Amino acid sequence: MFARNVWYVAAWSSEVTAKKPFGRRILNEPVAFYRKTDGTAAALFDRCCHRGYPLSHGRIIGSNLQCGYHGIEFNCEGTCVKIPGQETIPSRAKVRSFPVEEKDGLIWIWMGDAKRAQQTPVPGYQWHTDERWGWKGTTFLIKSNHLYLNDNLLDASHLGYVHLKTVGGNPGIHDKTAMKVERTDRSVTVSRLLPDTPPAPTYTKMANITCNIDRWQDIHFQPGLICVDVGATKVGTGQTAEGRANAMFEFRVANGVTPETEHTTHYFWSAAQSLNPSDAAVTQTMYDEIEKTFREDWEVIEAQYERLLEAPDWRTVDVNNDVASVQARRIYDSLVREECEVGTASPS
Amino acid sequence: MFARNVWYVAAWSSEVTAKKPFGRRILNEPVAFYRKTDGTAAALFDRCCHRGYPLSHGRIIGSNLQCGYHGIEFNCEGTCVKIPGQETIPSRAKVRSFPVEEKDGLIWIWMGDAKRAQQTPVPGYQWHTDERWGWKGTTFLIKSNHLYLNDNLLDASHLGYVHLKTVGGNPGIHDKTAMKVERTDRSVTVSRLLPDTPPAPTYTKMANITCNIDRWQDIHFQPGLICVDVGATKVGTGQTAEGRANAMFEFRVANGVTPETEHTTHYFWSAAQSLNPSDAAVTQTMYDEIEKTFREDWEVIEAQYERLLEAPDWRTVDVNNDVASVQARRIYDSLVREECEVGTASPS
Amino acid sequence: MFARNVWYVAAWSSEVTAKKPFGRRILNEPVAFYRKTDGTAAALFDRCCHRGYPLSHGRIIGSNLQCGYHGIEFNCEGTCVKIPGQETIPSRAKVRSFPVEEKDGLIWIWMGDAKRAQQTPVPGYQWHTDERWGWKGTTFLIKSNHLYLNDNLLDASHLGYVHLKTVGGNPGIHDKTAMKVERTDRSVTVSRLLPDTPPAPTYTKMANITCNIDRWQDIHFQPGLICVDVGATKVGTGQTAEGRANAMFEFRVANGVTPETEHTTHYFWSAAQSLNPSDAAVTQTMYDEIEKTFREDWEVIEAQYERLLEAPDWRTVDVNNDVASVQARRIYDSLVREECEVGTASPS
Repeated sequence: MFARNVWYVAAWSSEVTAKKPFGRRILNEPVAFYRKTDGTAAALFDRCCHRGYPLSHGRIIGSNLQCGYHGIEFNCEGTCVKIPGQETIPSRAKVRSFPVEEKDGLIWIWMGDAKRAQQTPVPGYQWHTDERWGWKGTTFLIKSNHLYLNDNLLDASHLGYVHLKTVGGNPGIHDKTAMKVERTDRSVTVSRLLPDTPPAPTYTKMANITCNIDRWQDIHFQPGLICVDVGATKVGTGQTAEGRANAMFEFRVANGVTPETEHTTHYFWSAAQSLNPSDAAVTQTMYDEIEKTFREDWEVIEAQYERLLEAPDWRTVDVNNDVASVQARRIYDSLVREECEVGTASPS
Repeated sequence: MFARNVWYVAAWSSEVTAKKPFGRRILNEPVAFYRKTDGTAAALFDRCCHRGYPLSHGRIIGSNLQCGYHGIEFNCEGTCVKIPGQETIPSRAKVRSFPVEEKDGLIWIWMGDAKRAQQTPVPGYQWHTDERWGWKGTTFLIKSNHLYLNDNLLDASHLGYVHLKTVGGNPGIHDKTAMKVERTDRSVTVSRLLPDTPPAPTYTKMANITCNIDRWQDIHFQPGLICVDVGATKVGTGQTAEGRANAMFEFRVANGVTPETEHTTHYFWSAAQSLNPSDAAVTQTMYDEIEKTFREDWEVIEAQYERLLEAPDWRTVDVNNDVASVQARRIYDSLVREECEVGTASPS
Repeated sequence: MFARNVWYVAAWSSEVTAKKPFGRRILNEPVAFYRKTDGTAAALFDRCCHRGYPLSHGRIIGSNLQCGYHGIEFNCEGTCVKIPGQETIPSRAKVRSFPVEEKDGLIWIWMGDAKRAQQTPVPGYQWHTDERWGWKGTTFLIKSNHLYLNDNLLDASHLGYVHLKTVGGNPGIHDKTAMKVERTDRSVTVSRLLPDTPPAPTYTKMANITCNIDRWQDIHFQPGLICVDVGATKVGTGQTAEGRANAMFEFRVANGVTPETEHTTHYFWSAAQSLNPSDAAVTQTMYDEIEKTFREDWEVIEAQYERLLEAPDWRTVDVNNDVASVQARRIYDSLVREECEVGTASPS
């Protein structure tokens, strides 16, 4: 089951053009994306109502989408506006349209009740449009249910085991770290401080840090989006806002987590650095470090999910470090349950 | 569900030899084909009655087929005639045989009630044996239920959208074309005339036509076989037999449509030209044009079928141009229904 | 259904090390193998009890196995001995362990009732540790239920059809061979003697035999292991122990047959020669002959199984030569039935 009344990342802005429609499966529904003549994005259910051919294989005609099989045309609301060979258009000839918004270099989609979309602000990756940051992103298609990617992103305790050679470092340090977890109705925030600790390999590589530092990791979850802010500052200053403002090194990672199907997940992520925002080489090095890290997670999550798939009724054993990921699952589950009651939740 | 009391194309004549048996799945049943010492073709159910090994992996011994695992032999009627290591042959030791006929360079098979096979004439691709025509054919294995290939072949309205650069041309012309549909018990014929129209690219390439022409398209459907006759003649003469007899250019396409499984289809087709029947290069060019065209259809049909597979209960919206394909589906459905009543229809 | 109270071959000794755990699916359960500091092998259920990550992807820490995701550790009995970030270990934190024994260069596993493992001797490939024999082995993963591999190994009547060019030779000879079958509670022995017969190609290649010989084939089945002893001696002496002791050529093949899943089988086999046990080149030639032979069987079994999979209710027709394989199936079936009654059998 998916929560539908959520803004999910659907695509990078550059993926959706006015030249050729673009198809992607979201919450197990096929969606065709394109841009209208005014440059705004539109999204239609990706199946022509006539014979089922994917509209994403068709052509953009002005602000309409034309099916590539028999030439039937739909406007951005999914209303059929032309059927070759006849004048009358039957009232059943239409496809579903989805609210989409463009923000911070991304196309966001709302797969649920369209009325509620208007009342819900689109989240963002704010530092994509902040000149103090240089960023680069990409998309992974992960063969796992999306909830296991959320678990992974909300859990910093795996850093010392999975990411020994990149952002993690010595596992012993992570074991002893204090963790603060705050929960609201629709969000979980995890804050960790690693005081007086040696730098992880990525810190040395990026900012040439070799002395001990105070390290912080702040992770903010809301359904569909997890933002991570990580940094290093002088020993003894990691707990204060001033210390963080004078960081020796800081990076941010935005993670759009969008179910493709029950068993596969679109993972839109970007890494941002503030050492030298306009230097593409520094941004690339930052990106490369994170990509290496996330590829380690990718392997772990898929191996884990393969095991879980074959034993759907198996019960896990929770440990103390699971507190944040357990809270995040409760939030997502409560959205699904609530939508089931009002009838908008979709089967996976 | 498949209609079984139909002559389906099973193979090109050259595929079935006296050297090595040949296996192919037809209506979801595995069939082993071979030639006897007199050169005629035979077809047995492709599973040894002993331990299930495919007979198509065995050897041809005279007019019999020998299983390649334990050496058990069957004659062309499927009767077991030898079991190594014993004299007695149990009465259960037999496999099913299927009526086959060779005609026009093809092997045709009857998967239904053998008594009815004798009463039903084998259709043909007559121009394969007519010296006024030069032809070349091939087989595609299409990942779609066969009915969607029938739909595609019976519907000329997609030419202007899918085949813009080959046999189709300007979509505006196709939209306005008059279409005549005739139906009998077991056939549908569609006749279209495009008067005073520019030639499609294939016409120019093949016959160097650059002026406006009258174009005709005749499509004849019967279960398992769709024959297409297409041509161009002087403006004003396309409606008369005389005009057609003096065609500037004409080509014919035979299409054997044989279910492999519910979800895959053997597509045996050939293209024939009468410009210069003995010139293999002209035939090759004709074939290449049609192959390009049919590869476009192949992609379209598979993309369509993928969508439909995931929503089996979804209802399509019909349009005026669907009249012929809807009639053809009714004919096939009525055969299936009729066979269900007498108990010979096979589950897909 | 699998019989669990059986010693199955799990791995070659060299596959299980103290450096890195090793994962393999046995009777459809994932198992992680590793060696402890004392060099003995251990086997745990390959799924961490915390979040399901495969333990075989983790690290060996002393005599324990550490999960590679969150650092949780288990000892060789599957008891959790460390959870990072907390002192208390919940009693549910454990994974299953399996009895394993090392013998004759192989790791053997017991997937059933551990108490019965102690009472059951581990079989062996004795000539792996006998200096009169030189051997070489490998593993095939066969896409078939394991029972069809047993059938194949117990049936010498296919030699003349499947292995014409290697160990088989003239099919006519095999047809007339007398076969003796002895059965006990848990074993079947087939003895065949081919008196005064030309040598099969392998005999000529290995031992340069060109004259007629007496050939024997002894096949011994017990669940999980089939041992084959084959040889050639002077005409008239093949029936006596003395004749066999003076063999012109003899080879042995051990076959560990271990279900991976219901539809796939680990096949651990080795070929041994006594012509010149210390000459690796002679052993390699012997191995190459058998490998060629077994690859022929591999193809046959998979083609057969593909057919059978699509018709699970289909009834085979038995022939006289099936006597040994039918007995072996009865033994395996009776083990499964018996375990069902006491509740230890596992669904496939």
